[in-house]
Amino acid sequence: MITRMSTFFLRTLREDPADAEVPSHKLLVRAGYIRRVAPGVYSWLPLGLRVLHRIEAIVRREMDAIGAQEIRLPALLPREYYEKTGRWTEYGDSLLRLKDRKGADYLLGPTHEEMFTDLVKGEYSSYRDFPVILYQIQTKYRDEERPRAGILRGREFIMKDSYSFTMDDEGLEEAYQLHRRAYRRIFDSLGVEYAICAATSGAMGGSASEEFLAVSPSGEDTFVRATDGDYAANVEAVVTPAPAERPVDGLPAAKVYETPDATTMDALLEWARSENLTVDGRPVELSDTLKCLVVKITPPGGEPELTGILLPGDREADMKRLEASVEPATVELAGEKDFADNPFLVKGYVGPKGLADNGVRVLADPRVVTGTSWITGADRKNRHVANMVAGRDFTVDGYIEAAEIREGDPAPEGMGTLTLERGIEIGHIFQLGRKYTEAFDVQILDEDGRRSVPTMGSYGLGVSRLVAVLAEQMHDEKGLRWPAGVAPFDVHVVIANKDAAAGEAAQELAEGLDAAGLEVLFDERPKVSPGVKFKDAELLGIPLVVIVGRGFAEGKVELRNRLTGETTDIAYDGAVGTISGMVSR
Amino acid sequence: MITRMSTFFLRTLREDPADAEVPSHKLLVRAGYIRRVAPGVYSWLPLGLRVLHRIEAIVRREMDAIGAQEIRLPALLPREYYEKTGRWTEYGDSLLRLKDRKGADYLLGPTHEEMFTDLVKGEYSSYRDFPVILYQIQTKYRDEERPRAGILRGREFIMKDSYSFTMDDEGLEEAYQLHRRAYRRIFDSLGVEYAICAATSGAMGGSASEEFLAVSPSGEDTFVRATDGDYAANVEAVVTPAPAERPVDGLPAAKVYETPDATTMDALLEWARSENLTVDGRPVELSDTLKCLVVKITPPGGEPELTGILLPGDREADMKRLEASVEPATVELAGEKDFADNPFLVKGYVGPKGLADNGVRVLADPRVVTGTSWITGADRKNRHVANMVAGRDFTVDGYIEAAEIREGDPAPEGMGTLTLERGIEIGHIFQLGRKYTEAFDVQILDEDGRRSVPTMGSYGLGVSRLVAVLAEQMHDEKGLRWPAGVAPFDVHVVIANKDAAAGEAAQELAEGLDAAGLEVLFDERPKVSPGVKFKDAELLGIPLVVIVGRGFAEGKVELRNRLTGETTDIAYDGAVGTISGMVSR
Repeated sequence: MITRMSTFFLRTLREDPADAEVPSHKLLVRAGYIRRVAPGVYSWLPLGLRVLHRIEAIVRREMDAIGAQEIRLPALLPREYYEKTGRWTEYGDSLLRLKDRKGADYLLGPTHEEMFTDLVKGEYSSYRDFPVILYQIQTKYRDEERPRAGILRGREFIMKDSYSFTMDDEGLEEAYQLHRRAYRRIFDSLGVEYAICAATSGAMGGSASEEFLAVSPSGEDTFVRATDGDYAANVEAVVTPAPAERPVDGLPAAKVYETPDATTMDALLEWARSENLTVDGRPVELSDTLKCLVVKITPPGGEPELTGILLPGDREADMKRLEASVEPATVELAGEKDFADNPFLVKGYVGPKGLADNGVRVLADPRVVTGTSWITGADRKNRHVANMVAGRDFTVDGYIEAAEIREGDPAPEGMGTLTLERGIEIGHIFQLGRKYTEAFDVQILDEDGRRSVPTMGSYGLGVSRLVAVLAEQMHDEKGLRWPAGVAPFDVHVVIANKDAAAGEAAQELAEGLDAAGLEVLFDERPKVSPGVKFKDAELLGIPLVVIVGRGFAEGKVELRNRLTGETTDIAYDGAVGTISGMVSR
Repeated sequence: MITRMSTFFLRTLREDPADAEVPSHKLLVRAGYIRRVAPGVYSWLPLGLRVLHRIEAIVRREMDAIGAQEIRLPALLPREYYEKTGRWTEYGDSLLRLKDRKGADYLLGPTHEEMFTDLVKGEYSSYRDFPVILYQIQTKYRDEERPRAGILRGREFIMKDSYSFTMDDEGLEEAYQLHRRAYRRIFDSLGVEYAICAATSGAMGGSASEEFLAVSPSGEDTFVRATDGDYAANVEAVVTPAPAERPVDGLPAAKVYETPDATTMDALLEWARSENLTVDGRPVELSDTLKCLVVKITPPGGEPELTGILLPGDREADMKRLEASVEPATVELAGEKDFADNPFLVKGYVGPKGLADNGVRVLADPRVVTGTSWITGADRKNRHVANMVAGRDFTVDGYIEAAEIREGDPAPEGMGTLTLERGIEIGHIFQLGRKYTEAFDVQILDEDGRRSVPTMGSYGLGVSRLVAVLAEQMHDEKGLRWPAGVAPFDVHVVIANKDAAAGEAAQELAEGLDAAGLEVLFDERPKVSPGVKFKDAELLGIPLVVIVGRGFAEGKVELRNRLTGETTDIAYDGAVGTISGMVSR
């Protein structure tokens, strides 16, 4: 069926919406793909819904191809399922909760691990039933603290989520790899530029996990890539290479100095240089100083534990990395009261020795290996100590990833250095293990007739978010640009010639293309100038625009490729065949 | 792609679920189409989702064919839209309400008139933009007081809802008729047996409305059909034909009798017959007695008004009809306090005269026309009055539909009599008029440049409910039976022969049917007996079952038509062609 612009439910806007900051948000609203209803809640207009449907079809195709079976669970879910895993509480304010008329508690599903686990428990009982992979394409809800960027981070959004259940870890690894390949095929089909990043598992629990991040300056996630290799990782998941331990013999003894003016790390360095202090025979650097950050770490349901975090002085603490390192425990900086309650903590002069001597747990950056020498706080006001050697003058209780990652840091396994990039999470795959199957007491008879708890994977893919991601990555200054196969229409036919014969010829061309199986948008608006039509075509971003304009008198129509910008004239006669040959879906 | 039973996410159940009362609920659960998550909240398993998707495709096809444009609005909606029309309050307990993390009020959309009106207001401004019909296929929420019958009346369900916006009443009538025809095509395609019933508009407001009711003993709605004609109506919408008025001259005078034992209508009739009372010269009937029901009617935001409802003594009051007659006002029966506060109301002896004399509004059944004679209460204890003539001895303030409808009542326009049937609402179409466009102050410039408020229609169709309706209407004692085009698969191939060659032949046949474009369910479970496979096939209800069984030795396979019960043998050679020729979608 041809869609005619004169009756199409579409009004393009000249102005960017006032609340829009990123290009996809501006353009999807201006081009009439989406409309805002509330913060993070959007309506899909005909153009947007067409893109969404096409993405869904690609996702469905690739999920079916790995043997995943589609089902659909409700969004309105009873509290008791999420109580079993503690997530009713753990989700905090990001869960939308409600009561029904009888006062029973419900939530709007943010993700469905509990529900799928309970479902499989109800249907399956023997190892012969496994493996099984189930998926749904479904509307999800998260009450984001700051919904932003249109549909990039909404509160009501569409996800494909799937769940694998297998009897053993090999099965889980296989289901995980099937998903990894399916995701690659999906994102490759869509033409998304993305990186697969090693990730932390976060609130999901479980062991291995990887994030698919679409590369975009509008992204909220920072990730690293190696300059010489295919390593990529979420910043939270980057592991700092530890230098080799060194012998402590023969290193100069620790010495305390009066340092009344060294109130910052930079001032400390300046003082150390003025004293001509050295490390390994060279002048000291900022990276030879050692910060002692005092924090409180609270395990779930437990008491806060005072902890010292040792970091090289040239690195800021990255609280997100620190939080990811201790999850599910939470972290906060020690406050005035903590310092008051623990007089051995001398603000500005905390050192590793004072902490250890007073029974405070000490966790260090991996660079603080045995044999390294540091200038650090001497646990007395206006005093620092130099030549504090790890493993000799102080020991640590463990290592932790808490320091910031910087552009140029070494990549693992000799893959050069790291670059820092921004990305948008479009997929996340998890090897969950038995967290959920144990919580729901899923007991399956194995080959030997013994009860066994199956292991589980969970795999999310942001379907509605992908519409925004494609807009982010593909747009130019004139508007949207859609790859073939995802575009709301295959071809956009424009009448740009007032001659009645040209109008009829355009109509025939549109009908011919429709008959050839293409989705045709036909701009036959009688009172709209060619200039406005061209501008609209650029804004809407259908990959192929066919213009029946001036050249029609010489039997020609113009093709504009919205992706490459190329313009060519082709003969009107045979144009249907020429054009449909060019459109690959 | 072939779906193999050995890995298909499906477990059929032998027992009906404990909470199931109607056949569709029992069978859809037993056959593994749906699973319950909470009262009125269900999961769709692979079989159920396939039926749902096919119904959606048919609905989409027919909506597109009338020029309706698909969009999708959110389910999570801010309160303010529904405040504008008062429905935030009017919906009462059936609305699911919630707060976000900032305390803002939201609801889960039960229907979207407000949202579509606001959307069109935002996009369109000129008469040239109209008419427009928009639709969505979307998940809706209603907190039903008694969710029942599985997906027949759920709290989370899928609807197609559409909305027409036109500049004038002719446009509305046209959009309404387009929908009426589209609905007929949809239900005819699905093979649903249904009636189109005149309906009341209820909480929607507006003028004309019709309900599409699927005929089913499991239905909650009662409707009437004419024996000789195509009239059908919701019971609430049946209009009682009023007899002609009669002259009052020469009718006997009203006379009060002592009737100490006449405490019921039947006892009153017995007494009247013992007194040899007559009406029109014939012995009195129960239909010559007149009941005076005392109720309180409360308009929205107003005070309750005491009202007398006059009904022939042979008819019960139908509170649903009475409620529909006064909507949006509400009705309740007068209570002890009302009788105590109004001593002229003599319980058991209330008559029309006492009501009118004391300023109480009197509304009568349409049969109580001028010139009719009645035996009724005399407003004193133990007293009735005979020969009370309407229009002579008492007058009424208006007429009202409050009496029950009975099988055999006359149908309108000489179409015989009425039969009473049960039905399930599958569609409802409304000519809304300007209720919503006025509430949202939609101003459109008309041809003369004047501001004009467009008129609106709203059209609902129960997509997920249709799955249950088809199960209700098509099932037999053995299980489900799906019409072609809606069935989860086109053909169900069963191996019922242990011979390896037969198994391979069945596999080839399944592959051939798949290659021919059919959706194939392949029961190749190695350890399941043919008997169990046949029972499962009957339960699942795929319309065509192909059995590679005993006859395979003679080069034959068996076809079982699940709809007709017919069994035929066909040659294995060429079976793909034979079978695909039989499957029409």
